[in-house]
Amino acid sequence: MSPTTPEVSPPATDWGMLSYAFLCNLRVSSPLVQCITNFVSMDLVANVLSSAGASPAMIHCVDELPDFTPNVAALCINVGTLSAEWVPAMKSAAELAARHGKPWVLDPVAAGASQFRMNVCLDLVGLRPTVIRGNASEIIALSSATVGTTKGVDSSHKSSDAIEAAKSLARESGAVVAVTGAMDIITDGRTVLGASNGIPMLQKITATGCSVTALIAAFVALDPPRILEATACALSLFGIAAEMGMETARGPASLRMHMIDALHGLDQAAVLCRTKIAVLL
Amino acid sequence: MSPTTPEVSPPATDWGMLSYAFLCNLRVSSPLVQCITNFVSMDLVANVLSSAGASPAMIHCVDELPDFTPNVAALCINVGTLSAEWVPAMKSAAELAARHGKPWVLDPVAAGASQFRMNVCLDLVGLRPTVIRGNASEIIALSSATVGTTKGVDSSHKSSDAIEAAKSLARESGAVVAVTGAMDIITDGRTVLGASNGIPMLQKITATGCSVTALIAAFVALDPPRILEATACALSLFGIAAEMGMETARGPASLRMHMIDALHGLDQAAVLCRTKIAVLL
Amino acid sequence: MSPTTPEVSPPATDWGMLSYAFLCNLRVSSPLVQCITNFVSMDLVANVLSSAGASPAMIHCVDELPDFTPNVAALCINVGTLSAEWVPAMKSAAELAARHGKPWVLDPVAAGASQFRMNVCLDLVGLRPTVIRGNASEIIALSSATVGTTKGVDSSHKSSDAIEAAKSLARESGAVVAVTGAMDIITDGRTVLGASNGIPMLQKITATGCSVTALIAAFVALDPPRILEATACALSLFGIAAEMGMETARGPASLRMHMIDALHGLDQAAVLCRTKIAVLL
Repeated sequence: MSPTTPEVSPPATDWGMLSYAFLCNLRVSSPLVQCITNFVSMDLVANVLSSAGASPAMIHCVDELPDFTPNVAALCINVGTLSAEWVPAMKSAAELAARHGKPWVLDPVAAGASQFRMNVCLDLVGLRPTVIRGNASEIIALSSATVGTTKGVDSSHKSSDAIEAAKSLARESGAVVAVTGAMDIITDGRTVLGASNGIPMLQKITATGCSVTALIAAFVALDPPRILEATACALSLFGIAAEMGMETARGPASLRMHMIDALHGLDQAAVLCRTKIAVLL
Repeated sequence: MSPTTPEVSPPATDWGMLSYAFLCNLRVSSPLVQCITNFVSMDLVANVLSSAGASPAMIHCVDELPDFTPNVAALCINVGTLSAEWVPAMKSAAELAARHGKPWVLDPVAAGASQFRMNVCLDLVGLRPTVIRGNASEIIALSSATVGTTKGVDSSHKSSDAIEAAKSLARESGAVVAVTGAMDIITDGRTVLGASNGIPMLQKITATGCSVTALIAAFVALDPPRILEATACALSLFGIAAEMGMETARGPASLRMHMIDALHGLDQAAVLCRTKIAVLL
Repeated sequence: MSPTTPEVSPPATDWGMLSYAFLCNLRVSSPLVQCITNFVSMDLVANVLSSAGASPAMIHCVDELPDFTPNVAALCINVGTLSAEWVPAMKSAAELAARHGKPWVLDPVAAGASQFRMNVCLDLVGLRPTVIRGNASEIIALSSATVGTTKGVDSSHKSSDAIEAAKSLARESGAVVAVTGAMDIITDGRTVLGASNGIPMLQKITATGCSVTALIAAFVALDPPRILEATACALSLFGIAAEMGMETARGPASLRMHMIDALHGLDQAAVLCRTKIAVLL
């Protein structure tokens, strides 16, 4: 299950080239990404996936998962607007993905907001997600199974505060864990990567976290999977699109629009000169 | 039930004038269009309807359909994010619409993605929709009741591949069938119209198909109904708005915005010079 | 419960200064606003709250309300896409908010569209909302508990037609009642304020009413609450953002974007020179 292979993890990795190679692969192969995501984010998630080159499918009905999930390239599960009726579909889809060797990515939105939510997230972690992506408060809460420390969906911690929690969660779950923030942290429990693209105003746009989680799902659907690297590159590319969008944005709503346009139009020159990924540990 | 009357179907139809007349009628009468649609598309569908001049109402509760549906001008049912709980409301609304002589339009999203979904779509087709609008893969799957040939929600066929399937489905269901693609195909089982407005980048915007289905519902709500023509004109006008939006768009997200603005501002000159509708068969 | 205190209600109130003070307070304190809102509006509501400076949380699961709702700063309940499954969560959240002294705001979307919807709205009014915000048709329907007079979600009355209905509803419910329209009417049953910011094209954007209701929730979460004034200021500021957005908008979709950008960037000069609030009665 360890995605870090000797030939890619050394400092010599050209992250810009790797990111762009992943993006080209995505645009050519257009992987089908099933999303069981929250009501707030469905629109943005689907449009971000489409703009990047993937084929999104928002399908969550427990009655059709056995027909559908085995054929997807990757699955994204996001617990944002959780309610009890959704849990069987989330678990069933995760099990189907695992059984058919399809990568799946978990977004434990507001994991610490209630005991109910935490229990669902822990159950999903037990179904062996390929990647878990959250903000620092979510990853700290999930790693320690602690409820009540977070304020809603916004993080009250910096991503660097969550490095040990992320490593611990990665080792226990077998997943690559990504903590988004001013610097995104990505770890498989041993190697720790940092991705520093992005801009502060992203936090003023609802569902950008959900969207980058879905983009990670699209990237880890690519062959070869190289989970750790693919996760870092997805985060970096999303951040680059935001940086480029910010150049013409006048506020959060125009940023959202320009960011999607930029993601759709990303070219090699921009990716090569902007990618900021480094091995931290 | 046949909407094609001698005075409108001959080649002499001035489609630009007819489209613009429908649009003016829509803006003046502002028909109330009930939408039972998927979570991903609700925002865009409602905004497209509003911008075109209709009054959208996203009401799907089975407990209030008997009070509400008999008073609407048209109904749109879209199975995008289907789950079992939604089926009774969809069927009940379709039955109420039919019983009260209100047109209703079906969007069989991803009809071939699972047996469950196919069965629901077939049941809905049995409730006599006025129009069925899908992409080529959806119409081919629905016409042959075949599961497993489509990849998610995106079409893997060209619209012209689906002409015979569309005619067959139209004859069996009694509905006008519209197949969207590079050229939109519209048929009542005998006459086949082609509408060629639109741009490729529409496929990169989630829920544009759902939105044009809802716009068809608004058009067939107009009096006189002239179902075949109204469907073609709705498709053409939506495509014209996309073409005009594309003139200032820089990617899928700005296209979405400019397209809605253009739909709201469409004037006679633009409609007359851009409309591309022809009788194919 | 009466929010109108002698020192603020006289004509001498500087509404521009008060509005800007509320906005600054909102940006600094970033209150956590829980929204149980309809599917159509979730995206816009969350982005409007974020842009204004609040922290939105779309959490509606009955299993987690006891953990979550006591910790929020305010609650917004919107019945737009109502169905029976949502009613227990709406009632439970309203009860929790009331019990823990948290303000909560009700948006009785299309209250008169069905008897089922009316009954749910009346039950919620009985749980003592802090503010009720609707269009004229909704407030008239709710005040008289009359079904069948409204056409979908759009108002068929002017806001000024609803002044007596609003006063009556305010006196009976104990809530401040706001009626939005060309002039927004705000009353606690005795004082009547008028807020005249905004533009007609707002009606062409879905969920702007839902969004301003959520913004009212954020404003009444501030300390001191001054419910009547906070409600008027939220309505006025939202209208100002729309006016400023309209200066560069080319239709409903670009207006939506520019309005959110403007709300995020609102400065003192714009608020002071544009605020139009007056004591009417």
